[in-house]
Amino acid sequence: MNRVFQGVLSILGLSILGMFCVLTVNPALSEGRVDGVSEEMQATAIRLRDTVLKSDLSYRLDEQLTTEVGPRLVGTPGDRKGVEWAVAKMKELGFDRVWTEEVTHVMWERGEIEAEIIAPYPQKLVAIALGGSVGTPEAGLKAEIVHFPSYAALQAAAPGSLEGKIAFISYRMERRIDGSGYGPAVVARTKGASEAARKGALALLIRSIGTDDNRLGHTGSVKYDADAGKIPAAALSNPDADILMAQLSRGKPVVVRLRQTSERHDQTVIKTANVIGEVTGRETPEDFVVLGAHLDSWDVGTGAVDDGIGVGITLAAARHILDLPERPKRSIRVVLFAAEEVGLVGAKQYLERHRDELDHHVIGAEWDFGVGRIYDMRPGVGPEALNTIRAMAGILAPLGVSLNPDNTAKGQSDLSVLGEAGMPAVNFSPDGSLYFDYHHTENDTLDKVDREAMKINTAIYTVFAYIAAESGVDFRK
Amino acid sequence: MNRVFQGVLSILGLSILGMFCVLTVNPALSEGRVDGVSEEMQATAIRLRDTVLKSDLSYRLDEQLTTEVGPRLVGTPGDRKGVEWAVAKMKELGFDRVWTEEVTHVMWERGEIEAEIIAPYPQKLVAIALGGSVGTPEAGLKAEIVHFPSYAALQAAAPGSLEGKIAFISYRMERRIDGSGYGPAVVARTKGASEAARKGALALLIRSIGTDDNRLGHTGSVKYDADAGKIPAAALSNPDADILMAQLSRGKPVVVRLRQTSERHDQTVIKTANVIGEVTGRETPEDFVVLGAHLDSWDVGTGAVDDGIGVGITLAAARHILDLPERPKRSIRVVLFAAEEVGLVGAKQYLERHRDELDHHVIGAEWDFGVGRIYDMRPGVGPEALNTIRAMAGILAPLGVSLNPDNTAKGQSDLSVLGEAGMPAVNFSPDGSLYFDYHHTENDTLDKVDREAMKINTAIYTVFAYIAAESGVDFRK
Repeated sequence: MNRVFQGVLSILGLSILGMFCVLTVNPALSEGRVDGVSEEMQATAIRLRDTVLKSDLSYRLDEQLTTEVGPRLVGTPGDRKGVEWAVAKMKELGFDRVWTEEVTHVMWERGEIEAEIIAPYPQKLVAIALGGSVGTPEAGLKAEIVHFPSYAALQAAAPGSLEGKIAFISYRMERRIDGSGYGPAVVARTKGASEAARKGALALLIRSIGTDDNRLGHTGSVKYDADAGKIPAAALSNPDADILMAQLSRGKPVVVRLRQTSERHDQTVIKTANVIGEVTGRETPEDFVVLGAHLDSWDVGTGAVDDGIGVGITLAAARHILDLPERPKRSIRVVLFAAEEVGLVGAKQYLERHRDELDHHVIGAEWDFGVGRIYDMRPGVGPEALNTIRAMAGILAPLGVSLNPDNTAKGQSDLSVLGEAGMPAVNFSPDGSLYFDYHHTENDTLDKVDREAMKINTAIYTVFAYIAAESGVDFRK
Repeated sequence: MNRVFQGVLSILGLSILGMFCVLTVNPALSEGRVDGVSEEMQATAIRLRDTVLKSDLSYRLDEQLTTEVGPRLVGTPGDRKGVEWAVAKMKELGFDRVWTEEVTHVMWERGEIEAEIIAPYPQKLVAIALGGSVGTPEAGLKAEIVHFPSYAALQAAAPGSLEGKIAFISYRMERRIDGSGYGPAVVARTKGASEAARKGALALLIRSIGTDDNRLGHTGSVKYDADAGKIPAAALSNPDADILMAQLSRGKPVVVRLRQTSERHDQTVIKTANVIGEVTGRETPEDFVVLGAHLDSWDVGTGAVDDGIGVGITLAAARHILDLPERPKRSIRVVLFAAEEVGLVGAKQYLERHRDELDHHVIGAEWDFGVGRIYDMRPGVGPEALNTIRAMAGILAPLGVSLNPDNTAKGQSDLSVLGEAGMPAVNFSPDGSLYFDYHHTENDTLDKVDREAMKINTAIYTVFAYIAAESGVDFRK
């Protein structure tokens, strides 16, 4: 509670600071124009902002996606339905061009999971298989727990010291407004299984990478190293990790039974697609601003937050621009990426396909984080484009967005793949305090989406896309 | 968030009001004594209060119960282990007498449950069987949903109008500091199945009786009327009720498949026990103050809140009084009731056994609600005992407890059975704003327990028990 309240105070503080910065660093704004952004364009952007603030189109799109499609794990019927839904929806929204580009991946099935403490005090545990994990033997396995407070502690364990044991990493993710607690925590999920296997472990259990206290485990991908055997990997919910810790605190051997029927089908190629919609520019349609989000989701929730919000925001932003009397100079390309959750697969295949025309991706922004309001925008552009960014920031400042002076953004989530390859980007940061309460859990449902925040955030993406497309500025470094 | 914040403001307000009331209505306090409460007794009570405030014994007892025993559904191994644990713990804590009294009930098994929307948009639903519910046919059942916004709307449905359908009541419980949202909501759970059966329904689904937004259903008992067929009854989590409502909003028939293997064994009598521990009074040991809580819990959580908190508080209060240099005049009887969750069964059987000596139960207080701090105490005593109650209130006012002028309390939870039969009582009311987030769910685990609140609440019950036992006042009306 207090942390959330502090978060709100932080946002308010940052917002006020942001407005102050924009007003002080950007004298051109008070004169009514900046390089590449005419007074007319600014006036249009302000009208657009205020129109979008009154619309809940982005929320309604998320509601439709999660009600009519639901979970969209790559390779499942929901994934295919999601692609069909997105194509139909883009056409319905009036995009000038709509197409799909095939993405391939391999099949994984979650199966079922049972986990329980056998000794010293029998209790059931709520666990969830990590994405991509192999299963246990059909009958399950029983083994003593060896506890590590962190991934680093597991790394320090002696070779062979985990023979016949289950490794358990209890590190708890910290709640931070910018989600920066995720990095130090998630290594247990991505690398823990191979590290434990190298020490001889039969299986890996981790405390869920999440900030809530619900008995719902957080899934997410495990990465198996080629030099290590593949062992089953699962996450306990935070309260269940607490139960296990409480039993471990008694100093007696703690034995857990784990049965997990998840299965990798590494030879079974499945096909899905990036879904792409274009608002065709009136002057240089071959150049486009990219708005990114991902269409796939984990299977356990309905993916309303991750990344239904992004789908709603990017589709709605394009639609609001389609409603203008004329198209912007450049095109706007909404890319709803496939297979993000299983390793940015759709984005990587998009890059392979479009590497030759990367220069035509003039700038991009993705939404794939948070349920709160955007408080920060960080550009990653050439210095001569900064005035245009400042013009955007001036229009967005009343919405609580501060312009981060650190001009190093390389795109978020899927768009980090294009950003690393050289595409200019703006990273918008929403309040992420609550995001990891729901992330990769059954709790990722529509009731978690903040309808008012979504209006504001959609206005921000719309203004960004409009100015970037209309200004004609070269954002390259 | 806001509601919680408002709750905190309400508590502060009530507390200040409470202190004001106590100070103004009780001139005797400022003179250092009140009827039946000597200055020495007051001084001892204040010392006791301040000692208990520094102890986390009650929390540690809850931790032990939930770690070493876990869930305690009547008739399960956990229930039997709970009884053994409580007997052993009372002896370890130094109670003067410890015994059990047999309680009998019938057997019910939760089994498994699967619920999913089949049409128009297939989606899995998180559901939980209501306690005591019958199961569906082995293969499950599929039927169209007929939606009712409330139990009253179901009552108003035409006879036969639900033939071959599943009734769904979507009423959502309101969050209130005193838990008063529960009553208007819970009728759907207790009476909905029989009402739906009378109209011809195949099954009942309700929105969970809970205030959270987690995909964890809230269980709790269903009551079947003798004049209606028994149909399966289950609760959807709040987000899943939202998903069902969203699909219903499309205006197309919504078909749900429900498979539930829960089973009543109405002929299988199971035995459990009320566990009773006594601090034997030094002058009139045949008279006793009752501290009540219930030892059983639902099977899905560990019962850390419901009612591990009550077990911890009542055991710890007695232990703190055992630590005094001498026993109070009267005895203190801690009763850990069996089978509360399935209909106050342990309390009713206790009353049958002890009806002849009801007059020796001089006054009682139970803990079975909330995770927050007590802000209100409401007596139900004879007028000549009110000064003693005011003396208690004066000592408890600095802890934020206000004395409710409404002298009508008849005991809470189990002790309402004795209160209705005539036993005087004090009802202590903690902040219940969060209670129904966890109530009867898997989320009822130790991490939900507020360790600091538990210190304060234990101090309050300890002072109550001490003064009631030491004062010798007749609390009867």
